[in-house]
Amino acid sequence: MKKWCEIAGIRLAAGAAGIRKPGRDDLVLMELAEGSATAAVFTRNAFCAAPVRVAREHLATAEPRWLLINSGNANAGMGEQGLRDARACCEALARLAGDRESSVLPFSTGVIGERLPAGRITASLPTLLEQLAPDCWPEAARAIMTTDTRPKMACRTFRLGESECRLTGIAKGAGMICPDMATMLAFIATDARVPRPLLQALLEEAVEVSFNRITVDGDTSTNDACVLVASGRGGVEIGSGAGPAATAFREALGSLCRELAQAIVRDGEGATKFIELRIRGGRSEAECLAVGRTVANSPLVKTAFFASDPNWGRILAAVGRAGIADLEVGKVDIHLGEVRIVRQGGRDPGYREELGAAVMAGDEITVTIDLGRGDAATTVWTCDLSYDYVRINAEYRT
Amino acid sequence: MKKWCEIAGIRLAAGAAGIRKPGRDDLVLMELAEGSATAAVFTRNAFCAAPVRVAREHLATAEPRWLLINSGNANAGMGEQGLRDARACCEALARLAGDRESSVLPFSTGVIGERLPAGRITASLPTLLEQLAPDCWPEAARAIMTTDTRPKMACRTFRLGESECRLTGIAKGAGMICPDMATMLAFIATDARVPRPLLQALLEEAVEVSFNRITVDGDTSTNDACVLVASGRGGVEIGSGAGPAATAFREALGSLCRELAQAIVRDGEGATKFIELRIRGGRSEAECLAVGRTVANSPLVKTAFFASDPNWGRILAAVGRAGIADLEVGKVDIHLGEVRIVRQGGRDPGYREELGAAVMAGDEITVTIDLGRGDAATTVWTCDLSYDYVRINAEYRT
Repeated sequence: MKKWCEIAGIRLAAGAAGIRKPGRDDLVLMELAEGSATAAVFTRNAFCAAPVRVAREHLATAEPRWLLINSGNANAGMGEQGLRDARACCEALARLAGDRESSVLPFSTGVIGERLPAGRITASLPTLLEQLAPDCWPEAARAIMTTDTRPKMACRTFRLGESECRLTGIAKGAGMICPDMATMLAFIATDARVPRPLLQALLEEAVEVSFNRITVDGDTSTNDACVLVASGRGGVEIGSGAGPAATAFREALGSLCRELAQAIVRDGEGATKFIELRIRGGRSEAECLAVGRTVANSPLVKTAFFASDPNWGRILAAVGRAGIADLEVGKVDIHLGEVRIVRQGGRDPGYREELGAAVMAGDEITVTIDLGRGDAATTVWTCDLSYDYVRINAEYRT
Repeated sequence: MKKWCEIAGIRLAAGAAGIRKPGRDDLVLMELAEGSATAAVFTRNAFCAAPVRVAREHLATAEPRWLLINSGNANAGMGEQGLRDARACCEALARLAGDRESSVLPFSTGVIGERLPAGRITASLPTLLEQLAPDCWPEAARAIMTTDTRPKMACRTFRLGESECRLTGIAKGAGMICPDMATMLAFIATDARVPRPLLQALLEEAVEVSFNRITVDGDTSTNDACVLVASGRGGVEIGSGAGPAATAFREALGSLCRELAQAIVRDGEGATKFIELRIRGGRSEAECLAVGRTVANSPLVKTAFFASDPNWGRILAAVGRAGIADLEVGKVDIHLGEVRIVRQGGRDPGYREELGAAVMAGDEITVTIDLGRGDAATTVWTCDLSYDYVRINAEYRT
């Protein structure tokens, strides 16, 4: 599948500002054409980073024309100094571009608790402004990486009558991943024309069942942000939440977000397996989600996956502590791939270890947990917990 | 400090029943003198194991005279078969001892999801009955171990007038540790005379601030149980919850439980560091506990401790996602040992990395998190997350 396509009205540039390590691209500038609408969701972590606060503030003031994104430094936990540094970057860009400071949204990702080298960022801006081009999506996807091992891009197009609608998105994230009402950094652009309130609603809807359904380690980041820009330069207009245009757009956006979210899990720190947890038979989606998140974040379940061990007892134990007070354990069934391992709360009488082992040997595993008490369902994606997760996070700052 | 002392009215025996591996002690029998009072708390995991269900049932029927404890197999997730196996063991012991089945409380710990070899357990009972002795505490502490690397025992005595009161306790646990309203297996005996309702209240009070304040991996076990037996064979009687006898007993029991709980964390799977998290300045103990548990279970915080990395940004991020909606981040201070690393929500201006690194180099670390919004406080104990945690849990069943 195509990983990106140009979006009319959007130009990008990536460069090396030397923020943390010299010689690698760590700064991205995105220019949004006049008249673009921008929607965004941010982390709910109380210790949100300075750029998140500034971006929220600017979004409430003006329609954004610029996204300025750096990796290598999260500008988080730096108090007032962090806010000053984030604003200084926006100000410098606005001055160079002849725009207002509030037209710039800043984003940062990387180490928490070190001062942002704003001077190095502003010094790189003139070159980036010169290099803006519509085909720099791959360079941008690479420049926003931190512990990611590969860039994450996704693209969707659909036709509506004579017109084509395009969407391209990039994302980063591999650790400190347990988005809640937001995600790691993701930037999505479309050439559709969408009024801002509707764009925001469509984004929140898509994020809820994509980025908000993944977890690597249960740690919600201080810098999560997901931005959706609609340049309105294509031929498709989404005027309301109903009708064929909205339906096609919703489907394309949802599918694109799922692909990016899953790409983050697949590239989870130290991950060797991609795990899809399908929770069904719940009384509400909320309780399905509670079970899914508890299983997905259990270190014991995750190390069993790493060992390719069909240790259904650990899955059962995690389901049992998910906080569903009146859960009838005798109604719970669990499938590993197509193999039923738990029936009515206990080991399936027909289950043989080699059947489970065969499923676990794969690197993409589906687990279906049926709570047997209702019709609600949800899906959560996660990865295993390996030696490399410990190594990556023990060595991160050294 | 003395690790155990005989408790009048309590006799024990340990033996090798070959439950999982041949040649190691894996079965413990405790005989409680007639007239003993027994209090117990159990796991709140909805998938509680068969022995937990049977023990609860028997406790409600009769005063226990026997505790039968096996390691190597948790008898969890085995449905009706698990209940039949647990009852068969109780029945066999009752027959041999000329007692009722309900006088036996069964306890199991070990692998989840494999059938309990009840026949091997009952075959060992005649020998264990012959070997009962008041001085077998160390053998019992060793026989209940699973991934534990050392036995866990603690002892307290106090004098009240002419009389001495004794307490001895043993515990096991190293992984799947995040007790909530209960603990891993712990068995405590005293020679005091205490009526059962008061004994239960005293136990719950002690457990709440000891076993319920530790976590290794956030995974609450299916088999957690903590039992307190009062044989009444010593000279001390605790007649009510107030007065000098109750005060001395409460202090001794609380201190003994804390020692056992901390011993579990110190022996946490793969643990290289023991971490005490003191949360203060909260509006309620509940919110202090939420912050403490979130920090204690954060894989990123735990790997930073493993790396001796004073990564206060990860601690801050965990505090921020603990679910305290109106937390004012500008009031949060964090100390690592005696070093203030975070002041008013940001890096302390006077902090230098080498000061934090010096504290982190130790293997016992205290972290103090002041929320700056009230007078409530609590303490949580945890350990780091190392390569060995992954190794132990990836290899556990192989």
